[in-house]
Amino acid sequence: MRAVIFDGELRVAELERPTPAANEVLIRPRLMGICNTDLELMQGYKGFRGTLGHEFVGDVETGPREWVGRRVVGSINITCGACDMCVRGLRSHCRNRRTLGIMNYDGVFADAFRLPVRNLYAVPDAIPDEVAVFTEPLAAACQILEVMHINPSDRVVLIGAGKLGLLAAQVINRTGVELTVIVRRERQARLLSELGIRSAERHEVPDNMADVVVDCTGNAAGFAAALDLVRPRGTIVLKSTYRGLPETDLTRIAVDEIRVVGSRCGPFDAALRLMLQSTIEVNTLIEKQFPLTQAVAAFSYAAQPGVLKVLLTP
Amino acid sequence: MRAVIFDGELRVAELERPTPAANEVLIRPRLMGICNTDLELMQGYKGFRGTLGHEFVGDVETGPREWVGRRVVGSINITCGACDMCVRGLRSHCRNRRTLGIMNYDGVFADAFRLPVRNLYAVPDAIPDEVAVFTEPLAAACQILEVMHINPSDRVVLIGAGKLGLLAAQVINRTGVELTVIVRRERQARLLSELGIRSAERHEVPDNMADVVVDCTGNAAGFAAALDLVRPRGTIVLKSTYRGLPETDLTRIAVDEIRVVGSRCGPFDAALRLMLQSTIEVNTLIEKQFPLTQAVAAFSYAAQPGVLKVLLTP
Repeated sequence: MRAVIFDGELRVAELERPTPAANEVLIRPRLMGICNTDLELMQGYKGFRGTLGHEFVGDVETGPREWVGRRVVGSINITCGACDMCVRGLRSHCRNRRTLGIMNYDGVFADAFRLPVRNLYAVPDAIPDEVAVFTEPLAAACQILEVMHINPSDRVVLIGAGKLGLLAAQVINRTGVELTVIVRRERQARLLSELGIRSAERHEVPDNMADVVVDCTGNAAGFAAALDLVRPRGTIVLKSTYRGLPETDLTRIAVDEIRVVGSRCGPFDAALRLMLQSTIEVNTLIEKQFPLTQAVAAFSYAAQPGVLKVLLTP
Repeated sequence: MRAVIFDGELRVAELERPTPAANEVLIRPRLMGICNTDLELMQGYKGFRGTLGHEFVGDVETGPREWVGRRVVGSINITCGACDMCVRGLRSHCRNRRTLGIMNYDGVFADAFRLPVRNLYAVPDAIPDEVAVFTEPLAAACQILEVMHINPSDRVVLIGAGKLGLLAAQVINRTGVELTVIVRRERQARLLSELGIRSAERHEVPDNMADVVVDCTGNAAGFAAALDLVRPRGTIVLKSTYRGLPETDLTRIAVDEIRVVGSRCGPFDAALRLMLQSTIEVNTLIEKQFPLTQAVAAFSYAAQPGVLKVLLTP
């Protein structure tokens, strides 16, 4: 079968079809999404080698009878179920975890891939493939509300209005908060306007006034801006990974009693419920589709600044 | 009157006795404490110029009749009462605040100093001066429990067992948690042992296992150690200020969904209640007393590594 692999170089390779273990299924993807993490893995993040990809919607080909033929999405952490984190119910923090297409487990950019049964979520018929493929990033957006409590009366500022940021903005906007998304491009402002979400340029937003700042930028300048924007006793949510070790004003955090909260993978069931309500807009986030065989071109395209979601088709 | 001033150089100067405003009292200190913040102000922190000092117990000399003659301690933030932070009840974050002996308000290392009436707390007779002088740092230690919830079942690791750390350890230990204080000196271990608090060297404490890490080190290496010690979804409390802008592994915070919470000034009333219970040990933390006129020597002494609380007498 064909698979998009990274072994120091990104390429489409011919691999043997994987053999699922007893607790796993084999899935044929219908649609796959390229995430910023995929782009970072090619910059050396986590020293990844293998088949890339973790965003998908697909059909179960082989596995337990009750799953075969079902259309599914799947959570990305392959967990032991036995360590202290799993026992606590924090399975995404499993001490022994592997991560689909990210860490020690081959990903979904292939004709077929395997995944444990307990990672599967059946997709309701009412959710089209082009929406369902956003389940993983939408779940990650929902995770913001899992790691902290946002009050409807809060003033929230979101920075980093990319693929994930535009989903996070929609999730947060549903809570009734006063949300402002800081934009750098005309197109971001237009997309947000269509979603009924207020946008502003950085200089239009006052310093030290936001109750909550959601940082989806994934860069050191973004975190520094978040520290400038948040009020004393406010909260900064870190929604993405950062290259290197940014210089950080820890004294500001201590003196102004700021909270910084990390947020990663989220609840798939919540994401699917939101998609069923049809109130999360994802179609305008789709930039372009490429066939799997054109994955190298798709990655180059996705890596351009300002480009939103790039999908792969089988 | 005599006052310990810093104007680029630390010295004892002869100043005019201050004239309290209508809402202020004049206080004659009985005992004063040197804090690490005082030492940092001399390194250029906040560009402070003026009379140093914010830890004291003293007698009200002039002011409203109901306060004259009373033995008092006082909170250190001089606030406007009108800004959004004050109105929210977050007076220590007043947008227009001055801070006793730290920012735009002369401090307590003098024969007399002024303070607003609303900053005063009467000291119960049962609390001796040598204990009452610790009210401000003990309140700061209590603030850890104001900014986060520590469960009695939590595993807590405290790093930085200095003046503030040893108070914080005692406050935290009273919650029933499994507390370990990381020590670097034999003497710290002995003091903690006398307090019934477990100590350990860094290499004896496993990585990524603490539910809560309290960082009282005030240096970049301390924060890096805190990140190594905390478990996924755990909390790091920043209890001190840091020189410069430490390089910080923000990705670890995001991926492991760690919370970082700053903590500064705390509740004086809670500190006084704890002192009345006589279950917080402060006397063994007193290193040495110097008369006010020997303040320069006292500061040099206090700045030595491992030295605990140095007090000044009038």
